[in-house]
Amino acid sequence: MRIVLDAMGNDAGATPLVEGAILAVKRYDCRVLLTGKEHSIARLLRHFRYTGDRIEIVPCRQVVRMGDSPTASLLKKDSSIAVATRLVKEGRGDAVVSAGNTGSSLAHALKTWGRLRGVKRPGIANLMPTSKQPCLVLDLGANVDCKPQHLLDFAIMGAVYYREILGCPSPRVGVLSNGEEPTKGNALSLATFELLAKSPLNFVGNVEGGEVFEGKADVVVCDGFVGNILLKASEGAARLIMSGVKGVMKRNVLTLAGALMLSPGMRALKKKIDASEYGGAPLLGLNGICIISHGSSNAHAVMNAIRVATEAVRHNINECIMTEVQSISHELEGEDAAP
Amino acid sequence: MRIVLDAMGNDAGATPLVEGAILAVKRYDCRVLLTGKEHSIARLLRHFRYTGDRIEIVPCRQVVRMGDSPTASLLKKDSSIAVATRLVKEGRGDAVVSAGNTGSSLAHALKTWGRLRGVKRPGIANLMPTSKQPCLVLDLGANVDCKPQHLLDFAIMGAVYYREILGCPSPRVGVLSNGEEPTKGNALSLATFELLAKSPLNFVGNVEGGEVFEGKADVVVCDGFVGNILLKASEGAARLIMSGVKGVMKRNVLTLAGALMLSPGMRALKKKIDASEYGGAPLLGLNGICIISHGSSNAHAVMNAIRVATEAVRHNINECIMTEVQSISHELEGEDAAP
Repeated sequence: MRIVLDAMGNDAGATPLVEGAILAVKRYDCRVLLTGKEHSIARLLRHFRYTGDRIEIVPCRQVVRMGDSPTASLLKKDSSIAVATRLVKEGRGDAVVSAGNTGSSLAHALKTWGRLRGVKRPGIANLMPTSKQPCLVLDLGANVDCKPQHLLDFAIMGAVYYREILGCPSPRVGVLSNGEEPTKGNALSLATFELLAKSPLNFVGNVEGGEVFEGKADVVVCDGFVGNILLKASEGAARLIMSGVKGVMKRNVLTLAGALMLSPGMRALKKKIDASEYGGAPLLGLNGICIISHGSSNAHAVMNAIRVATEAVRHNINECIMTEVQSISHELEGEDAAP
Repeated sequence: MRIVLDAMGNDAGATPLVEGAILAVKRYDCRVLLTGKEHSIARLLRHFRYTGDRIEIVPCRQVVRMGDSPTASLLKKDSSIAVATRLVKEGRGDAVVSAGNTGSSLAHALKTWGRLRGVKRPGIANLMPTSKQPCLVLDLGANVDCKPQHLLDFAIMGAVYYREILGCPSPRVGVLSNGEEPTKGNALSLATFELLAKSPLNFVGNVEGGEVFEGKADVVVCDGFVGNILLKASEGAARLIMSGVKGVMKRNVLTLAGALMLSPGMRALKKKIDASEYGGAPLLGLNGICIISHGSSNAHAVMNAIRVATEAVRHNINECIMTEVQSISHELEGEDAAP
């Protein structure tokens, strides 16, 4: 299996990406194609003393920056992400892993591969930490204004991904809302509730913003505007608290000693709540596989994203999504048509 | 000044409410009317050895429970919140403080007082902790589907409240969005951006979910669905982390010792990120003043909410809101009519 890694899509530099690729080819049954500046990548491969033949460089001259708009980035036809998506389109790679700008990666993947048959809107999903198993939330920003049918598609795609990649036979699906009761919600969430309740998915009803982090559901759907607010607000609150805790620890000699005693546990906690541990954010609903790695400065996270990409290919995730989207749409339409 | 405190609206019991009332009348220039079960309240006043004449009990027989729907609670005409809002309507009290169910408090206040002239939709506001000064976010759930004009009203009301209660001459107002750039947003946030940019408010543009907690703006507006998700998600993420930190501390003797060294600082941090320190959540846009106290189990928070209520009365906050809503609407309409 050949995973294409966009080796330049990271403002922090290519080092963790190249290191992550090396870790991945050593651990998993895959080859990695690195798209980016040949000279820099070759130097990093030498730096990490990689001499194997399972990593290949595909040179390209342009780089999409974190600040580039998706539209502007599409003009960079020889950028590492453009080349990466083309390699998959041409059958020279099986999936893309990108540590770059999510919007630009989505734009390139959508332009090069198109949508998956039957899916109206591709979505950006992400695994959020909870007190139990992680929770897959989508959409996180690809579609700011949605219709209930789009959220149904998100639910189906999310459930397939959760089942195939996290090995949960019947993931619990919920719709994000401002209250637990079925009567709570806005026009979109209420209509989505109705659709999901009629679907064969394992629908558990409304999920409140806080319940996402309690593991009330395995998959939670919302429009991309709300999903983005949920993601950023939780990250913002987490940063505020962690910086507060750090401040407490640095107060004096006594607190520094206390912090020292806690540091192994705190490191483990940070790892647990760090989403990049779960292997990145999949773009779902595209006619190709693309995993966004958050761990731009962390080789371990890049390796994890490559692992998830190999699993998505092995489980034929897009075939599964197409089949289920079609069968569920058919079933719901049949029900509507019934007397 | 007479503040009416709904002394029963708290499933945890009336104790912290009565204690908070006693703290308030000792510290601030106000009287407190406690609505609720006469016998229980009188017993608590004796328990706290209060013998002054600045607290009065107004007996009533019904109690709105946390689980009651707003509509169901409206039927309880002799409930402590119904009586509290009536006392203000009849001129026997100047403002209400409630530690109860926000939805029911809003329903009773709206039914008894009506909306403030010129305000289309009352909103629920709340001060969120940030790394700098707190940030007032509204609406948090009163209105799930909004129009841009409603968000403009929220912005004006929030700015007046922030100016008068937090003493900031020109609060920075932002609109919650999924990106910093003016082009980012959904249909509602983009239209609101345009309105706010034309208004005389100190508009600072889009504010992302995470930027709320960095103090990028003093007042952030959004519809009640999104606001509720923002609030609950940040609380959920905070709970997840704090319980993780606690877990780390309890791991073994060494970590327990470390925790002991950190405990004074951790208590201070908890206090800093606890919104109830700021005195509760105002309901804005009603023809009367109502402050919701979150600190249902905390007399100090109840006292703070009473203090905020006295300040809202003293600053004539509703007069200020009416004047500014009228003048800004007039200005924006004039601009629309200009050639």
